[in-house]
Amino acid sequence: MLYITIQGPYVLYRSRTRDEIDEDMLNYVSSIYDDLEIAKYDILGSQAHVIMLYKSNIIKRKDARMILWALQVLNGAEKGAGDGQGDIYHIMKGEHTEEDIHEMIEGEVIRMIGMESGGRMHTGRSRNDQVTLDMRMKIRDDIATLCGLILDAAEELVTLAERHRGTVMPLYTHLQQAQAGTFSHHLLAHADVLFRDLERLSGAYTRINKSPLGAGPVGGTSLNINRRMTAEMLGFSGIVENSIDATSSRDFIIEYMAALAILMTNMSRISEDFIIWSSSEFSFIEIADRLASPSSVMPQKKNPDMLELTRGKAARVIGELTGMLAIVKGLATGYGRDLQESKHAVWRATASASGALRVMIETLPTLMVNEKAMRDATEKGYLVTLDIAEGLVRCGIPFRVAHRITGNLVGLAHQRGIPLNELHIDDIDPAIIKDLKISREYILDIIRSATVDGSLRKRISQGSSGFSEQERMIKIRKSLIKRRKRMIESRDKKVADALDDLEKRVKSITNG
Amino acid sequence: MLYITIQGPYVLYRSRTRDEIDEDMLNYVSSIYDDLEIAKYDILGSQAHVIMLYKSNIIKRKDARMILWALQVLNGAEKGAGDGQGDIYHIMKGEHTEEDIHEMIEGEVIRMIGMESGGRMHTGRSRNDQVTLDMRMKIRDDIATLCGLILDAAEELVTLAERHRGTVMPLYTHLQQAQAGTFSHHLLAHADVLFRDLERLSGAYTRINKSPLGAGPVGGTSLNINRRMTAEMLGFSGIVENSIDATSSRDFIIEYMAALAILMTNMSRISEDFIIWSSSEFSFIEIADRLASPSSVMPQKKNPDMLELTRGKAARVIGELTGMLAIVKGLATGYGRDLQESKHAVWRATASASGALRVMIETLPTLMVNEKAMRDATEKGYLVTLDIAEGLVRCGIPFRVAHRITGNLVGLAHQRGIPLNELHIDDIDPAIIKDLKISREYILDIIRSATVDGSLRKRISQGSSGFSEQERMIKIRKSLIKRRKRMIESRDKKVADALDDLEKRVKSITNG
Amino acid sequence: MLYITIQGPYVLYRSRTRDEIDEDMLNYVSSIYDDLEIAKYDILGSQAHVIMLYKSNIIKRKDARMILWALQVLNGAEKGAGDGQGDIYHIMKGEHTEEDIHEMIEGEVIRMIGMESGGRMHTGRSRNDQVTLDMRMKIRDDIATLCGLILDAAEELVTLAERHRGTVMPLYTHLQQAQAGTFSHHLLAHADVLFRDLERLSGAYTRINKSPLGAGPVGGTSLNINRRMTAEMLGFSGIVENSIDATSSRDFIIEYMAALAILMTNMSRISEDFIIWSSSEFSFIEIADRLASPSSVMPQKKNPDMLELTRGKAARVIGELTGMLAIVKGLATGYGRDLQESKHAVWRATASASGALRVMIETLPTLMVNEKAMRDATEKGYLVTLDIAEGLVRCGIPFRVAHRITGNLVGLAHQRGIPLNELHIDDIDPAIIKDLKISREYILDIIRSATVDGSLRKRISQGSSGFSEQERMIKIRKSLIKRRKRMIESRDKKVADALDDLEKRVKSITNG
Amino acid sequence: MLYITIQGPYVLYRSRTRDEIDEDMLNYVSSIYDDLEIAKYDILGSQAHVIMLYKSNIIKRKDARMILWALQVLNGAEKGAGDGQGDIYHIMKGEHTEEDIHEMIEGEVIRMIGMESGGRMHTGRSRNDQVTLDMRMKIRDDIATLCGLILDAAEELVTLAERHRGTVMPLYTHLQQAQAGTFSHHLLAHADVLFRDLERLSGAYTRINKSPLGAGPVGGTSLNINRRMTAEMLGFSGIVENSIDATSSRDFIIEYMAALAILMTNMSRISEDFIIWSSSEFSFIEIADRLASPSSVMPQKKNPDMLELTRGKAARVIGELTGMLAIVKGLATGYGRDLQESKHAVWRATASASGALRVMIETLPTLMVNEKAMRDATEKGYLVTLDIAEGLVRCGIPFRVAHRITGNLVGLAHQRGIPLNELHIDDIDPAIIKDLKISREYILDIIRSATVDGSLRKRISQGSSGFSEQERMIKIRKSLIKRRKRMIESRDKKVADALDDLEKRVKSITNG
Repeated sequence: MLYITIQGPYVLYRSRTRDEIDEDMLNYVSSIYDDLEIAKYDILGSQAHVIMLYKSNIIKRKDARMILWALQVLNGAEKGAGDGQGDIYHIMKGEHTEEDIHEMIEGEVIRMIGMESGGRMHTGRSRNDQVTLDMRMKIRDDIATLCGLILDAAEELVTLAERHRGTVMPLYTHLQQAQAGTFSHHLLAHADVLFRDLERLSGAYTRINKSPLGAGPVGGTSLNINRRMTAEMLGFSGIVENSIDATSSRDFIIEYMAALAILMTNMSRISEDFIIWSSSEFSFIEIADRLASPSSVMPQKKNPDMLELTRGKAARVIGELTGMLAIVKGLATGYGRDLQESKHAVWRATASASGALRVMIETLPTLMVNEKAMRDATEKGYLVTLDIAEGLVRCGIPFRVAHRITGNLVGLAHQRGIPLNELHIDDIDPAIIKDLKISREYILDIIRSATVDGSLRKRISQGSSGFSEQERMIKIRKSLIKRRKRMIESRDKKVADALDDLEKRVKSITNG
Repeated sequence: MLYITIQGPYVLYRSRTRDEIDEDMLNYVSSIYDDLEIAKYDILGSQAHVIMLYKSNIIKRKDARMILWALQVLNGAEKGAGDGQGDIYHIMKGEHTEEDIHEMIEGEVIRMIGMESGGRMHTGRSRNDQVTLDMRMKIRDDIATLCGLILDAAEELVTLAERHRGTVMPLYTHLQQAQAGTFSHHLLAHADVLFRDLERLSGAYTRINKSPLGAGPVGGTSLNINRRMTAEMLGFSGIVENSIDATSSRDFIIEYMAALAILMTNMSRISEDFIIWSSSEFSFIEIADRLASPSSVMPQKKNPDMLELTRGKAARVIGELTGMLAIVKGLATGYGRDLQESKHAVWRATASASGALRVMIETLPTLMVNEKAMRDATEKGYLVTLDIAEGLVRCGIPFRVAHRITGNLVGLAHQRGIPLNELHIDDIDPAIIKDLKISREYILDIIRSATVDGSLRKRISQGSSGFSEQERMIKIRKSLIKRRKRMIESRDKKVADALDDLEKRVKSITNG
Repeated sequence: MLYITIQGPYVLYRSRTRDEIDEDMLNYVSSIYDDLEIAKYDILGSQAHVIMLYKSNIIKRKDARMILWALQVLNGAEKGAGDGQGDIYHIMKGEHTEEDIHEMIEGEVIRMIGMESGGRMHTGRSRNDQVTLDMRMKIRDDIATLCGLILDAAEELVTLAERHRGTVMPLYTHLQQAQAGTFSHHLLAHADVLFRDLERLSGAYTRINKSPLGAGPVGGTSLNINRRMTAEMLGFSGIVENSIDATSSRDFIIEYMAALAILMTNMSRISEDFIIWSSSEFSFIEIADRLASPSSVMPQKKNPDMLELTRGKAARVIGELTGMLAIVKGLATGYGRDLQESKHAVWRATASASGALRVMIETLPTLMVNEKAMRDATEKGYLVTLDIAEGLVRCGIPFRVAHRITGNLVGLAHQRGIPLNELHIDDIDPAIIKDLKISREYILDIIRSATVDGSLRKRISQGSSGFSEQERMIKIRKSLIKRRKRMIESRDKKVADALDDLEKRVKSITNG
Repeated sequence: MLYITIQGPYVLYRSRTRDEIDEDMLNYVSSIYDDLEIAKYDILGSQAHVIMLYKSNIIKRKDARMILWALQVLNGAEKGAGDGQGDIYHIMKGEHTEEDIHEMIEGEVIRMIGMESGGRMHTGRSRNDQVTLDMRMKIRDDIATLCGLILDAAEELVTLAERHRGTVMPLYTHLQQAQAGTFSHHLLAHADVLFRDLERLSGAYTRINKSPLGAGPVGGTSLNINRRMTAEMLGFSGIVENSIDATSSRDFIIEYMAALAILMTNMSRISEDFIIWSSSEFSFIEIADRLASPSSVMPQKKNPDMLELTRGKAARVIGELTGMLAIVKGLATGYGRDLQESKHAVWRATASASGALRVMIETLPTLMVNEKAMRDATEKGYLVTLDIAEGLVRCGIPFRVAHRITGNLVGLAHQRGIPLNELHIDDIDPAIIKDLKISREYILDIIRSATVDGSLRKRISQGSSGFSEQERMIKIRKSLIKRRKRMIESRDKKVADALDDLEKRVKSITNG
């Protein structure tokens, strides 16, 4: 039985040592590498906890002062940073036997200031509430970053849409040309999807933004701690009250990852659109050189591989979500070490999502749009058939009949390889309009007047591809983005303000 | 080229026939079996659409009347039901060649009332907006059902907790006994998880509760339809505006399924708790006979197989979510037939979740709780060690030192196989309290007074296992459940009222 | 406590009744609906088991005769079928309280022939070994079917390849045109993938084709049963020896589903190819009418929705595999009811895979191939650049230099919008061939002679797109398919022969 | 347009530079970090390729010599290592703009020896065949490692089983005690599962062990390369012939990961067994100190967290498999950059599987087994009920009747809280044996003689828990492990021999 001996006779955790366990095993069990991402939050949480212990008369001011000073050193605040990149960063990167950041920070504090003060730091809490606190603070920051990127991406979509509100293109279903539409309409559709991604992440935020600190290992503590005070100092909107729930549940992580998986499938779909449109056969768009890759054998070839990576990373985020669900599904209530695996999964998912958004933000303003190719495909494709049928409907013909008439005529034109407006009056079989109060001339008139541009001027239903709808929708989206940005800023400011206050308190105590 | 000929010269869709395609292929492509679940919604959507067409002067009142009458027959309203179990139900169950419900209903309407009126029903919409409308209405109803069940399950948890607010049991981490706690505390933790499941489903509800109707195949229509009017008649809070987004996006389905996957992992964890606690070795609880299954070889054996099924079904809902994500991830923008596979996935996920909740609602009030076994395990397990250490902390000893002292004593007692309060004063090695301002007698006093019940009376931190916290938390949860029930009822009532109004309008037109 | 009373005082399992449990709960727990697929195997297993009991002197001939007779009735053998569609089929479809097929069949046998004989049927086995026996027999049959379909699909691919061994088309990477190739080459690639799918399924077969029968509930039996005898009668190649392993493990199911998931991703990729090639923009192929679907608004539009369904079903099979893995991952050793969920997952995965293969088998011979469009795209695309560079390599120029020279020239041609062979000698910048022992004329010569057909005649590396390689590979694949068919047939015949023998033994005893 | 200029006027790939693209984007797209694991294989592949080019008269001996020399330097062979940790390792770790290892190595070679020789290295191949070659070699090595570990783990299981072939314990189904059994029986079950994992990996090996080298970008080459020669030099058993298949397919990776996912679920199940058995309530086993972790609040508590991590990592490997399937499912044929994501997924899965096996190999021989607790639980649990029923069967009583009789008696004993053998003759209700040719005394006799040990002596069915079966099965498994080890060694030796030969050839050319 080996103990890490710190400062003479005192001990912290009993820990495995390098004598006992080989490198492989240590790597298997250790989370230190992953913990680099949460060192900063672990220190912030400890600062708030120590101040609360002092304010609640559980520890003395002098002990608080010493602990806070040591934490500042570890955090790098002494050098002006305070971002978890201080001494602790180098200790984590170096040789050590600790398996997690919580143990390491407490150990370092005790090493620096002795057990008499340092040994009081862990009073009234446990690793189990600490780790979920750190994860909540990390994901809270991740969501803040992602929400900003989502709105930037939406803004680029709307900006590009505005430029192309008159650019006609085919709209597809089943990858088959279906109706004439506008490029802006397509871009705006993706913006609307992003607004929902923002809502989902914001919903997750409200559930994540609660403090578990003070829940202890699982059942709370007999000390008169003040959980609401630490929550407030750390910018949380409340606490995860039940201590079993606080230490054991990870639904907040899964919800976050599910939101990212949905976001990534959305990013994958727009990427897929762009990849297909970049093919020689479509030639609708061209990705900027610096966002594409050359072939090792065909220099003129330009592979849209950033977008392909977005597709690939979307698949892996789905896998990470699956993994997290399978982890939690297999657990009885109560913290289990299985949950450690959630860290790496979250880091990866966040990096994939922020990367995919950044790629899109870079791609959109530099996209070369081949308006001519888009228009040619639209003109060639009988894509105003439905508009023609609806012209007949306006003359009182039942839709199904109108549908059949236009179907017949399109079939004929298709067979002959001619555009609809080159059809001749004799092409209209009198049989198909028998019993209808409409003449062949009238039908021909409707067909001939059904140009792509004319149709898109007449397309008036709300949210349709019509030109006027583009103008209207763009305007609304632009103002929506502004409102959402303000909302996000005000949300993030609450956290920033709390953490600023915390820093001031820390300084006032360490300097006092 | 074969056409289904209906009523003389008119045609609906061109469709595959049994001559062309064998049974296997038809089963592969057909969604009719799955569509049984949405027949009702398809008819409701058609009713609202037809009324809107009439109100917008796109079709005449007489045409509207005839179509609405036919829909009432198909819906079973003629017989008083109106639940999609009318004629259409039997047609779907019988021999037919249609591949989906939309085609079938329109075909039946035309067959019944002729093309002159019936052929106008599909004006200004398409199968692509219809199918997503139906899915949204179905999931909206599913969420309503599930929210009710979640609150019922939470209520049973809180009721059982109230009965067992004084029942002590060990709390576990790593499936190892960790702290003395109360059974109620454990039950309340699961209730709190369920409240978040409710929130997630309610968040999804707001995004699902928008109408896509009138988006057409993908790009909208040139007819002057009123999308907001149909949305209102169907009880939606708004529309999915962009028609590409409305027909192509399925994030609402994935979000719903992700919420169910999270809910199911939560149900799986409580099931896992109960399964472990039902083992002979734990013997904490016994599942009621009717919810357990006998062994085919050991009659006294009682398998908790309902709860095992919940675990198994949780795994499969994770799989269904994965499947949905993989479907959508692989699609370019625009409706693809791949999306048809989402129907069955949703039906299964809903059935699993509602079943799991019902099993829990039945299980909780009939659970036999072996309070003695719970207490014995708690008493035997040195589970007040932390409480003792905190007693020392209150005397001014640093937590880490207190932790080490109690650790030593517990180790000793454990070695001798005696309870902590049988330790003798000589067992306390003077070396370990050297330099501390505390006597061996005082330590012994703290240890001897640290009974399970005493500790739980002193456990006062917010959300802890302490007795007083149980009382407080139960009271708050009871009132929370009431509030949430009212909230859900009022939400559901809005939809019910709209659909009642729709029915009245239908009747007023058909009877008028 | 209620017992199903059968034939006076005797009882079978204690079972939940409709009084005790409502319909919802029964549906949640019952597997009867899923068991329709294994009724046949359950009866075969019982026949073999009963004959073994008799041969091992555990039951008497007269008891065996009566049980076997009852099983024949249930199986439908009396009417000549013997396919699990006899009386038992109708009992399962009707009203009943049994939760599974094993209980139901034994109950029916006892009902028919009394407890004195019928009560001996379940000697020396349990539901736990029965259910996994049934699953193994079912999957064994499924693999046999799928292997046949895989070889049929491979045959269609090779047949179509043979027809198009001279049809040139662009080969793609990143969906960008990369090299000139042949359509046959592409088809043969998919055939080779299918051969590996066949190997994987055949590997799974060897592990599945072992009998668990006689393993009992978990620990075996004290009766002197002969497990090898039943295994042989049922056509198995051996037994799953360890009884815990036999009843508890489901790796055989996961392995089967993993093989199907891989097969389905392969089917999804070829479907994706065909969907993209069917777009107007590519126009390389056209799916036959009966395998496509019409649009509800554009009659000339033909959606490749069978292939889209294959993509969608591939996603769901991935989900089913995930679900199965998550089920088993969460289980301690020993049968758990969670495993019941594997049935439905297997049925669905098998149906999806066989359907996808059938769709492909139908699609390939009816595919309309637009050779002209393929050739035009190839000619237009500078797709012989690599061939030209290799021409230069043959003159002793380092590949990277050759690559740069051709890159330059292609860039120039691309810029001017002319084919490579219209480049003029002055277009070759002397600077780029400085220091090289090659003249501009020679380079021009190589470029001009690099036609698509010429290049494909020179493309000689093994497995390449070259014309000669197509001939060679097609010939080898044709003979490989023949060999594999014989192999599959001989494997399937062993099972069929064993089951024929079993039937004879059954008849010899029942008639004897 | 920026070119990396190497050695004057020559260029390699056009590449993004740090001016063009920010750090984030570079990280998003770069695979260099992941490529550290395949640098070694990339060099081996290049060595074989260059020797083949020389032997096929495509390049000259002097060019081959220079290239091979440069590769040796990069590989570290100059310093005696040759493990991809030479110069290239440091270049990869440092600042650079290359996005992948293939580009980097070729660039370095050209930098070292000039374009005249170095520019010939990439003749007749492409990054697309190189990357899949590297992956195949890496996974081939991974499988070799894992197969060794699997057999070591199986050996530890069998060794422990041998020590505990007489240790009785309850066997469980539904986590309920079901039958008396032996600890060895349980351990042997897991060994048998591992043998199948070995088979699956070996099956995957045969499909992975084929060379794709020489397939070019997608369609092969016009140069007269010899693909079989490179395959042989690299120890492959053959080639992936079709060049589209060779560059585009990743079924070999998915199959490998599926095999690992199955292996991990198996490791998770045995871990789950051990975790449950380590609970206070079971107390069957104790994990060695160095493989468990202390609690931060309860020093005597020992958390089995290595095994919990195995459960958690199993979940994530499932997720990685899901991710890989979703990547490939969404791709058209032809290499796509999405596939780059497979690298990291494979590294993680391999590390998880080898770690989990190592943990098990360490855990088994150091496991403390509490034989008394196991026996007590077995004795207390009426676990010989089935053995008693079978005793009655041997007297000619139908199993169902015997089952009912023992069921009755067990119920009675259970109710009274006494062991079965304390039942009195009057406890046997004459009614239940009415009409049976058996006396109450005889029944009592059977019951009294049914001790746990007696039952396990009589348990004789093949693969059962009976003592004699343990002896027999252990002996067979021991010899099976030996045979399998020899098989694996001989398989691995083929590769090692080929690579040794390759090294000799390299040296003979570089030195010659």
